[in-house]
Amino acid sequence: MTDAAFAAPDAAFADRVRTSFAKQGLMAHLGVELIEVTPGRCLLRLPFRTEVSQQHGFFHGGAIATLADNSGGYAGQSLLAAGMEILTVEFKVNIIAPGRGEALFAEGHVVKNGRSLIIARCDIWAERSGVRTLCAIGQQTLMPLDGARVN
Amino acid sequence: MTDAAFAAPDAAFADRVRTSFAKQGLMAHLGVELIEVTPGRCLLRLPFRTEVSQQHGFFHGGAIATLADNSGGYAGQSLLAAGMEILTVEFKVNIIAPGRGEALFAEGHVVKNGRSLIIARCDIWAERSGVRTLCAIGQQTLMPLDGARVN
Amino acid sequence: MTDAAFAAPDAAFADRVRTSFAKQGLMAHLGVELIEVTPGRCLLRLPFRTEVSQQHGFFHGGAIATLADNSGGYAGQSLLAAGMEILTVEFKVNIIAPGRGEALFAEGHVVKNGRSLIIARCDIWAERSGVRTLCAIGQQTLMPLDGARVN
Amino acid sequence: MTDAAFAAPDAAFADRVRTSFAKQGLMAHLGVELIEVTPGRCLLRLPFRTEVSQQHGFFHGGAIATLADNSGGYAGQSLLAAGMEILTVEFKVNIIAPGRGEALFAEGHVVKNGRSLIIARCDIWAERSGVRTLCAIGQQTLMPLDGARVN
Repeated sequence: MTDAAFAAPDAAFADRVRTSFAKQGLMAHLGVELIEVTPGRCLLRLPFRTEVSQQHGFFHGGAIATLADNSGGYAGQSLLAAGMEILTVEFKVNIIAPGRGEALFAEGHVVKNGRSLIIARCDIWAERSGVRTLCAIGQQTLMPLDGARVN
Repeated sequence: MTDAAFAAPDAAFADRVRTSFAKQGLMAHLGVELIEVTPGRCLLRLPFRTEVSQQHGFFHGGAIATLADNSGGYAGQSLLAAGMEILTVEFKVNIIAPGRGEALFAEGHVVKNGRSLIIARCDIWAERSGVRTLCAIGQQTLMPLDGARVN
Repeated sequence: MTDAAFAAPDAAFADRVRTSFAKQGLMAHLGVELIEVTPGRCLLRLPFRTEVSQQHGFFHGGAIATLADNSGGYAGQSLLAAGMEILTVEFKVNIIAPGRGEALFAEGHVVKNGRSLIIARCDIWAERSGVRTLCAIGQQTLMPLDGARVN
Repeated sequence: MTDAAFAAPDAAFADRVRTSFAKQGLMAHLGVELIEVTPGRCLLRLPFRTEVSQQHGFFHGGAIATLADNSGGYAGQSLLAAGMEILTVEFKVNIIAPGRGEALFAEGHVVKNGRSLIIARCDIWAERSGVRTLCAIGQQTLMPLDGARVN
């Protein structure tokens, strides 16, 4: 099944995603970088540091889950009209290989762009000495929300 | 259904959990505190800071997921024999209320202590002005592994 | 954490659940029985037959998942106003022991009764020679919907 | 990310899958057909009947989940050595559109073929008047097991 092609209703979707990303204290604190956002798709990168590690010096499952949440979430956000925000309803992540390497890459993409719910999947790779290994996969439910109603 | 009562085969289980927890760079970096670990149960706390926030100043879903992963994971670790380690196979988390408040508390508990897999659930609350609100719930699959085989 | 106590806004909630249950062709075909529904809680039973088995003569994972879906779904339905229906958004089920025995029992209960989403958990036991063993646990996201909008 | 290409260690993998499928009482009872199995991939079909319906005459979520479980499970089974069996550890399914139509098609495929765990995804479509609509997506954890140890 090839991915559906999505169109972003807001031409400024990428700016909007970057602005939101920059407001997330956790992203700067962990060192997550927003590499690219296209309609229905978002690519993140997280360089390895002890600050994102678990007890064996690999990437922590929490860091992996954070990438899963945000790569899918901003993939969804890219498809919203101006003024709308995305909320994570739930997500699931399978860690299928140790998160070992210089960096993690997470690519989230929208599978269903519904009016009341958006469903996304993500793939997360670890890059080690230039070789990428699939490290985790996720599936996520998102909810669009009027930005004015968030607080 | 009341929780099963579990016995820890390793009398030093709590020390072992604390030692492992202390080696996780992400825990110190986020500011997660290990409040208590009993056989099959683990309680964590994460005080709010901008460093763990999302774009509206609430706890980030990634921080919530990190607590889910670790509260369940160390609940499982508490039941292992000496020399065994826990691996997260997968987990799912529903965020059921905004993570808003001074701190998050996460309690993981083992539901099934199997030989090849351990299954856990967790509940996560946000504490705001002394009132706790259920913020997220999770379900997790863990795998015990000989510590010597991890690297 | 003790379960929240829920009140059903529709006094006829149990009749409504039973009427809906009776319309589900799959329930009669599998032989699922609706044992009890109280506000925010629903108990189902499925007697064993070859017709619900997998290749080793245990309950099939699909039968287990069907019980998970419906026990949580009707737990949620019990809390809706008249004229509202429940939709399953997603669910996850861990099969933690073989489904072996004379019958399965599934108890779903609502954890969060939100306006736009309802979150439920379920526990499923297998009864064998009078002994019940926890066989599966689940976590589910449900969406209330105006019944007039379903078709 | 393109799917990995998998090789089946047992040349008789397809026969073995079909034999196992034929032993599952639930498959015949629901009317599920095994369309095709290739290494790491399995395609199922379920024609609509009242016997697999929910209260609005659509495919029941339990029938959808059954397809998710089995399409991923047999995708995994296809990669096992002779004498090995697959066990479902857990799975999650998002229902993203009503299961409405003449038939459901479910395609499971292995994402990671590990020694101790196999991870699969599945896509489920509803076919209505010749048009296929994505109806559900799933993610699953499977465990290979020596067939002699199952009972």
